[in-house]
Amino acid sequence: MLPEAIEAMTEQLRRVGNPSSLHAAGRQTRRVVEESRESIADALGARPSEVVFTSGGTEADNLAIKGLYWARRPRRRVLLSAIEHHAALDPAHWLAESQGAEVELLEVDEHGMVHPDTLRAAVERDPDDVAVISVMWANNEVGTVQPLHVLAAVAHDHGIPFHTDAVQAVGQLPVSFAASGADALTLTGHKVGGPMGAGALLLARGLTPVPVQHGGGQERDVRSGTLDAPAIAGLAAAVRTAVAHQEETSRHLTALRDELIERVRQAVPGVVLNGHPTERLPGNAHFSFPGCEGDALLMLLDAKGVECSTGSACSAGVAQPSHVLLAMGAAAAAARGSLRFSLGHTSTREDIDRLIEVLPAAVERARRAGLS
Amino acid sequence: MLPEAIEAMTEQLRRVGNPSSLHAAGRQTRRVVEESRESIADALGARPSEVVFTSGGTEADNLAIKGLYWARRPRRRVLLSAIEHHAALDPAHWLAESQGAEVELLEVDEHGMVHPDTLRAAVERDPDDVAVISVMWANNEVGTVQPLHVLAAVAHDHGIPFHTDAVQAVGQLPVSFAASGADALTLTGHKVGGPMGAGALLLARGLTPVPVQHGGGQERDVRSGTLDAPAIAGLAAAVRTAVAHQEETSRHLTALRDELIERVRQAVPGVVLNGHPTERLPGNAHFSFPGCEGDALLMLLDAKGVECSTGSACSAGVAQPSHVLLAMGAAAAAARGSLRFSLGHTSTREDIDRLIEVLPAAVERARRAGLS
Repeated sequence: MLPEAIEAMTEQLRRVGNPSSLHAAGRQTRRVVEESRESIADALGARPSEVVFTSGGTEADNLAIKGLYWARRPRRRVLLSAIEHHAALDPAHWLAESQGAEVELLEVDEHGMVHPDTLRAAVERDPDDVAVISVMWANNEVGTVQPLHVLAAVAHDHGIPFHTDAVQAVGQLPVSFAASGADALTLTGHKVGGPMGAGALLLARGLTPVPVQHGGGQERDVRSGTLDAPAIAGLAAAVRTAVAHQEETSRHLTALRDELIERVRQAVPGVVLNGHPTERLPGNAHFSFPGCEGDALLMLLDAKGVECSTGSACSAGVAQPSHVLLAMGAAAAAARGSLRFSLGHTSTREDIDRLIEVLPAAVERARRAGLS
Repeated sequence: MLPEAIEAMTEQLRRVGNPSSLHAAGRQTRRVVEESRESIADALGARPSEVVFTSGGTEADNLAIKGLYWARRPRRRVLLSAIEHHAALDPAHWLAESQGAEVELLEVDEHGMVHPDTLRAAVERDPDDVAVISVMWANNEVGTVQPLHVLAAVAHDHGIPFHTDAVQAVGQLPVSFAASGADALTLTGHKVGGPMGAGALLLARGLTPVPVQHGGGQERDVRSGTLDAPAIAGLAAAVRTAVAHQEETSRHLTALRDELIERVRQAVPGVVLNGHPTERLPGNAHFSFPGCEGDALLMLLDAKGVECSTGSACSAGVAQPSHVLLAMGAAAAAARGSLRFSLGHTSTREDIDRLIEVLPAAVERARRAGLS
């Protein structure tokens, strides 16, 4: 977590007061929540009333997709890219299984890009029956950044609400809710140097999804639950800081990342960079190591102090090839032999030196393990 | 928040690592989560595998009620007491509006008690069609404690899962999940001196509610979302501390509360104590002040440094008489003229002195305001 976020959060932890209570402590906490709301709105090109606080990205995705589906019934169609995070895919699949939805996954190209024509063709098969469209701003595994405002414009041509999971984008890319054209946008604290357990759905004012969490109706009557003021204060501090430094961070990470890619390619002949050559998150480098099991390679690198990921942490431990790589056309074997290296605000050139020092031997060993 | 909880939480805030990641930092965070799970289970008479972490009480109630309803379809009946929290009532009403459920509210007596015969009669009208029963352990407004294990036994006679919202009970009453007979039990951090934004559903091992939040499936595949390790560590510390001191706290609060009740009765003739005379939460005193608007009285007391509540914070600002008092048979006017005084581990006799010093004049003034 960013020091600014820890400070904002711990300061609030020592106070008391339910932000919905009428007494003085409650009203003071409410002020912290509302100032956080304004600050997040300001950083992300939204209006304060468009910020709906949630417990994180998963809840925000569930609220957008299920909530807009229910709100727009009897429309049945839910369109989302084939490379969405499970927090978007799984709600959609559940709507299909048990709530009468018809889910269609939009194809991506070999770089993980959704083409506007693909979306347009899918919509136009029956535009009046589309309840909601969801395409993530940038992919959490391979880092590909979508042509978001073009996709949102396709949705708008037909008056269909467009949701984007921008969990990876906020703080790494310039994000303006208003300029993006999206009607709903998911962000989460722990991806911007803020706390876990705090996120938000930016939600255009005219939209009223059916709640996923019913209760006191604290957030615009679309989300219930006691507002977690300390985490919200931490989230706002993190968003503010991350967005203020976004351009600089992005420049720094892009340079580091390009160096990492170049040096991995030199160190491991045959390695394949996954994702888009240019339209990718600054901090993302994702490779396939032919002949390796990703999990084995991860463990070998981990033992040498290099931390990386196979697939997404949210489905870690599951020995299945990544649905993202498969959607991009990778063979299952190549998908399993893939690793993501994420760079963040604490990453340095020494981290890359260390990786390059240990990587070739680890790949060699993982390949031998795979053969035996 | 309890100092123990703040400490556990802030310590974890300074670490990194997604508990679902495979790398070392992730595994370390996972250990914190699993130790927290064991510690909560141990404190509350549950098995570690029965602890499902959520973002708080509202989410846990939603998961229990909606999730068990969906899991047990085509059964349609949902039975809950008329005095449940909105976090339980509103999910049930939504199931009725949009998911085909038939919701029945169980009557309470004038003390806010659900009689086992009331539940039995309701179940027996069509036991095979009951999906789930939910009765809160202790009421958040008037403090009435239900005969929980008798109610759970009625449910079990018919093999129906029984959920209880024990948000108010944990830390104030002896709570054992195993001994209670409940199949699902909601608790939340900020009611036990722990953080907001962290709670749990204790869930018997055989039960698999349909998720309310779909995604990576982190918690037994019934709850998704990145586990909020710092808040979970804070929750566990708070539960452990609150439960360890429960008996002593309860004795202390009961004595203070009884004194508060006695002195309020002396100071304000005509005041009515709401809730059960003996079966009530140690820290709860709830009164009707005939002829007063509760909100006006609250503001007058607040100006004098006494913080109290009308109804529940979760619906504060809503000028409606409490559904809890109405269900107990109070007239709407009496319900509106009601205030709750909550005592906690920092409350002292001086707080009561201060209340009694300012209360009579405040009541007098609120009555005059009501007449004008």
